[in-house]
Amino acid sequence: MNTFGHIFRLTTFGESHGPAIGGVIDGCPAGIRIDFKAIQHRLALRSPQNVAGATKRTEADRVEFLSGIYEGKTLGTPIAFFVRNKDVRSEDYAELQHIYRPGHADYTYDMRYGIRDHRGGGRASARTTVAQVVAGAIAEQFLQAMGVTIEAYVDQIGPILIPDQTDGNDVDSSPLRCPDKFTEALWLDLIEQLREEGDTIGGAVRCSIKGVPAGVGEPIFNKVQAQLASAMMSIPAAKGFEYGLGMAAAAAQGSESNDEMLIRKGKVKFNTNRAGGILGGITTGESIDFRVAFKPVSSLSQPQRTITDSKQPIALQISGRHDVCVAPRAVAVVRAMAALTLIDQLLCKN
Amino acid sequence: MNTFGHIFRLTTFGESHGPAIGGVIDGCPAGIRIDFKAIQHRLALRSPQNVAGATKRTEADRVEFLSGIYEGKTLGTPIAFFVRNKDVRSEDYAELQHIYRPGHADYTYDMRYGIRDHRGGGRASARTTVAQVVAGAIAEQFLQAMGVTIEAYVDQIGPILIPDQTDGNDVDSSPLRCPDKFTEALWLDLIEQLREEGDTIGGAVRCSIKGVPAGVGEPIFNKVQAQLASAMMSIPAAKGFEYGLGMAAAAAQGSESNDEMLIRKGKVKFNTNRAGGILGGITTGESIDFRVAFKPVSSLSQPQRTITDSKQPIALQISGRHDVCVAPRAVAVVRAMAALTLIDQLLCKN
Amino acid sequence: MNTFGHIFRLTTFGESHGPAIGGVIDGCPAGIRIDFKAIQHRLALRSPQNVAGATKRTEADRVEFLSGIYEGKTLGTPIAFFVRNKDVRSEDYAELQHIYRPGHADYTYDMRYGIRDHRGGGRASARTTVAQVVAGAIAEQFLQAMGVTIEAYVDQIGPILIPDQTDGNDVDSSPLRCPDKFTEALWLDLIEQLREEGDTIGGAVRCSIKGVPAGVGEPIFNKVQAQLASAMMSIPAAKGFEYGLGMAAAAAQGSESNDEMLIRKGKVKFNTNRAGGILGGITTGESIDFRVAFKPVSSLSQPQRTITDSKQPIALQISGRHDVCVAPRAVAVVRAMAALTLIDQLLCKN
Amino acid sequence: MNTFGHIFRLTTFGESHGPAIGGVIDGCPAGIRIDFKAIQHRLALRSPQNVAGATKRTEADRVEFLSGIYEGKTLGTPIAFFVRNKDVRSEDYAELQHIYRPGHADYTYDMRYGIRDHRGGGRASARTTVAQVVAGAIAEQFLQAMGVTIEAYVDQIGPILIPDQTDGNDVDSSPLRCPDKFTEALWLDLIEQLREEGDTIGGAVRCSIKGVPAGVGEPIFNKVQAQLASAMMSIPAAKGFEYGLGMAAAAAQGSESNDEMLIRKGKVKFNTNRAGGILGGITTGESIDFRVAFKPVSSLSQPQRTITDSKQPIALQISGRHDVCVAPRAVAVVRAMAALTLIDQLLCKN
Repeated sequence: MNTFGHIFRLTTFGESHGPAIGGVIDGCPAGIRIDFKAIQHRLALRSPQNVAGATKRTEADRVEFLSGIYEGKTLGTPIAFFVRNKDVRSEDYAELQHIYRPGHADYTYDMRYGIRDHRGGGRASARTTVAQVVAGAIAEQFLQAMGVTIEAYVDQIGPILIPDQTDGNDVDSSPLRCPDKFTEALWLDLIEQLREEGDTIGGAVRCSIKGVPAGVGEPIFNKVQAQLASAMMSIPAAKGFEYGLGMAAAAAQGSESNDEMLIRKGKVKFNTNRAGGILGGITTGESIDFRVAFKPVSSLSQPQRTITDSKQPIALQISGRHDVCVAPRAVAVVRAMAALTLIDQLLCKN
Repeated sequence: MNTFGHIFRLTTFGESHGPAIGGVIDGCPAGIRIDFKAIQHRLALRSPQNVAGATKRTEADRVEFLSGIYEGKTLGTPIAFFVRNKDVRSEDYAELQHIYRPGHADYTYDMRYGIRDHRGGGRASARTTVAQVVAGAIAEQFLQAMGVTIEAYVDQIGPILIPDQTDGNDVDSSPLRCPDKFTEALWLDLIEQLREEGDTIGGAVRCSIKGVPAGVGEPIFNKVQAQLASAMMSIPAAKGFEYGLGMAAAAAQGSESNDEMLIRKGKVKFNTNRAGGILGGITTGESIDFRVAFKPVSSLSQPQRTITDSKQPIALQISGRHDVCVAPRAVAVVRAMAALTLIDQLLCKN
Repeated sequence: MNTFGHIFRLTTFGESHGPAIGGVIDGCPAGIRIDFKAIQHRLALRSPQNVAGATKRTEADRVEFLSGIYEGKTLGTPIAFFVRNKDVRSEDYAELQHIYRPGHADYTYDMRYGIRDHRGGGRASARTTVAQVVAGAIAEQFLQAMGVTIEAYVDQIGPILIPDQTDGNDVDSSPLRCPDKFTEALWLDLIEQLREEGDTIGGAVRCSIKGVPAGVGEPIFNKVQAQLASAMMSIPAAKGFEYGLGMAAAAAQGSESNDEMLIRKGKVKFNTNRAGGILGGITTGESIDFRVAFKPVSSLSQPQRTITDSKQPIALQISGRHDVCVAPRAVAVVRAMAALTLIDQLLCKN
Repeated sequence: MNTFGHIFRLTTFGESHGPAIGGVIDGCPAGIRIDFKAIQHRLALRSPQNVAGATKRTEADRVEFLSGIYEGKTLGTPIAFFVRNKDVRSEDYAELQHIYRPGHADYTYDMRYGIRDHRGGGRASARTTVAQVVAGAIAEQFLQAMGVTIEAYVDQIGPILIPDQTDGNDVDSSPLRCPDKFTEALWLDLIEQLREEGDTIGGAVRCSIKGVPAGVGEPIFNKVQAQLASAMMSIPAAKGFEYGLGMAAAAAQGSESNDEMLIRKGKVKFNTNRAGGILGGITTGESIDFRVAFKPVSSLSQPQRTITDSKQPIALQISGRHDVCVAPRAVAVVRAMAALTLIDQLLCKN
């Protein structure tokens, strides 16, 4: 099941060290002008190049489009695209061919398929998110034309959260996608220290989608929060999803949870937004606010006990190029999956 | 979008005060013996009857099957079923016809459809989960035959969590689905106090699915955790989903997050289960552990400010029959949706 | 796979002698007024009551709606409905329990499911088309509001075709759904003669859909003709589908097959309609014309050689109540499936 | 809607003169060895190179695979592939940019999307079937391993049908995919004559699928014949589909239409195969026999009246490279779509 969405459908393909990563978008409306530079910019934000603590693998990640666009505009037909895998050092993975790395999907893929492309993690590699980012960038261009904007940033790395009031640090140019300069410095220290120890760390990403009109969503099984949760849980390393009051809702009282409704200048408004912009699966018109928690990167350079595919115990110490914290690069993917979810929900409403 | 699943597909229908709530299961394998008593038992666990702090609405909730079963066995054809809505006091809702209740989907449904059945919340009522519970009970019977078992219980109400070691209180007969007698008493006090204040409270449900073999799941968009998250977020009042390390993963280090693999008596085992039974979207063979947070019930008998559908401000004080905490009754729904997710994933593997 | 359509989705259920036949429509737009009498009228046209040569089984076929309609209007939520099976004489089928009737699906269902409800043909009975007719009637009401009309009639029974110019016989009140009084008389004779011989006969239905605007359809796999063909081939006994020039296109030359385009009063018109209203899978704005061939009814009262489910040869002579020709009753089903196809295609365009 | 299939799903993309034509197969089982030469061979059979009366456009049509295959075997992950469009003479189409060619989808695409890539027919070009042929070749390799074989050939061009007993001419090497040498000669004459007249001609393709076990198929909406009909109607220029007795069933009597069942060497057999291998939507175990009629090629070099996209009447005489009869090249596509249908149906059964 490599397809996401009901109307605006993205089907992705590709293994980390195979010929390419790519996708096909079916159901994109016709006549939308595509900003190719903006797509490349999003790919750059996903790439490790400007991220502190990220792998040194540096793919150029040039997207090639194969169909669905003519003279810079969408045709309404499928948009196929791919990015070739170039900086592939599969020899780094040669010794891992028969080893099940802890925290990775090596063992589960073997159980699922009976065969696997071990190089670079194959289809289980986070590199596959390149396809989501490209498609999400196209979706976002469409959303922007409808007045919908998406913001995302890292709000926690390890035990350190950003303050309620940030100093407005520019997220895209921050090496940790941090909206607060002071916190960024703390995180940079933490990551440097962990790298030296051969350890890794978890993190969380917060996202807000503004400008979605009230009345978008489905009542039972494709609620906006359900599709969003599914979208976020499809991102490698994601362990939790919450929206509005989130997990804290379990501890809250009703008298402090509801949002009172009122009329401001003739328009319906909510006094607060504890709902996170969604009631009964359908948007309220307020900002859609959610948060995703990511586990620490599983590839440690510390020794770990594991087994081989012939069921022999082995001590593993992973070398190679790996991130310390996945959250900063995940920001681009969260944003892309949010865009893909919302465009699909908007088109479902018809 | 009122269908859940890809192979074992449940389509549900029904409004709270309409003629009936029901569903159609398509894709259920043929030849499975159905235990009708077990289905009714699950419905009873969802009903308010044996739950502390629950609404006094007491539907008999007798399921009638219309197709797909012959001489007690599934035919492989669609299984249609419904439960008539009998104890309907729509007059309780007459005065709410033009009011948007805070925390409810009244306003969003109006924005979505331009028309709505206001009685009892219509399709947005939690009563619609009757259909999931029936279908989930059938799915669970199928899973049991494959050696898969599902456990669920309330692990938090308001600020009070259950201890790490519970005293083994029987969950199904507990009025709050609490596995710990001592905690149950604390919760009963809390709920009684809130009811007197006309207030409500949040809670959380924990669920474990045991016996699923390694190798079940899809790689990118229909990962087990993605379908589970979508399933849980489809339950009314759910605000967060986490599995394995969960939201706490954001604060964890890699050296304390991976599960080491080893061989025990010739079989692959994991030393710990921080992964929550899933790696790369595919099952590891360990227990699938997750948790869902629910917001407080939105219907308070305290006065709240809101608006009417003609955009007039109004002060609302809700009478009628309502739960104080949704978590105990949600246990049956979490379990049902977990069963529907796992049977679908198992059948997808083929 | 008991679901038809992508946006306007009908899921059907039911066995011929089970409790009921019914369906759930998901994706029907909100706010459409339902004419219940018109639905019953369509069911009556499907029923054997006013059809020459039809079975004497006479179900009242009263539809009961369970959801999705409030105060006579659609809510946008799933519309569930069913018709109870009342005039069930399952004892007629007792002796057939272990016999594979030639031309029936008894054997193939056993091979598919390993279990089957033999009574009245179970799910393979043409009685299941009750669900399509109800849903099609709702779809047609929606289409009518958009200016789309559907006409269908029998154009062949056995070797006798209707003339190019019919005498305008009223189709709905014709006992053979024949638009030509003279031909009707010939057919009535033929059918009476075949009944006496214990034999049956094939037939064909022609259908025209008018008022669909140009530009409806999908380019590759869900072309209007592809979905129409799939819809028609889902009707029991259908053996062939053709549209526009149809099978005769194989013998035609290009110079006599294309439709020339021209402008009439400022509007685009086609000089002829050999295309059958569709080019490249997308509507031209002209009438969508197609034709479906049905095989003779398989239940003969003549003796036939067959086998039992324990692989014993047996001579079978079927008694019971059966049609001589399925085409007249199929008219209502062709019309319903045409409506379901077109509404789905129209809604897909958004 | 550019996806075909439910389990084995093919999504295609590409415009005739865009960068490439290609597709993504999702749901292909893992561990299947791919014969790349066989895929290229099928593409060659679709190409105009060895076909009498075909266009002179001669693409090399080299498939490049981007994912899903490792060391010659399928991984169970999506298989993406494409063929670059090289021999593109878009200048041939420059003058057609604003003209609606009769019998083509120029006008309908404009009505559907409001924008179109006119070059070479864009997405409406039969060149898009390259993707179906590649995917079908992979499906066929999988089917062969299960003992399923597919045969297809032209059985009619214009008014000339092949005889009941052919002389066993080798279909693949026949320039008209004709199984009868004598008929082939007649057809060659006919085509040569039409080419000189600037005219074109229709044709029909017959296909048999052998080795499919009994019990494959779905009961109501995804019957084998329904999915086959949909598959065939997705092929450009197809105007009719029939299976078993086909359209002639309308004229037949029941006593001459049923297939008697018997036991031969302990196995279930049918005395005849008028059913075409399918009863009630499910396979009988006999050969699945069907036939598809194709209209004459719409591009004539004779003058035709039509209009421009600014609604001006114009006389059009098409030059460029075009086929006289589409049927011979369609054989490869019919075969591919048959393979895609059957593999999907077989995997649906699980």
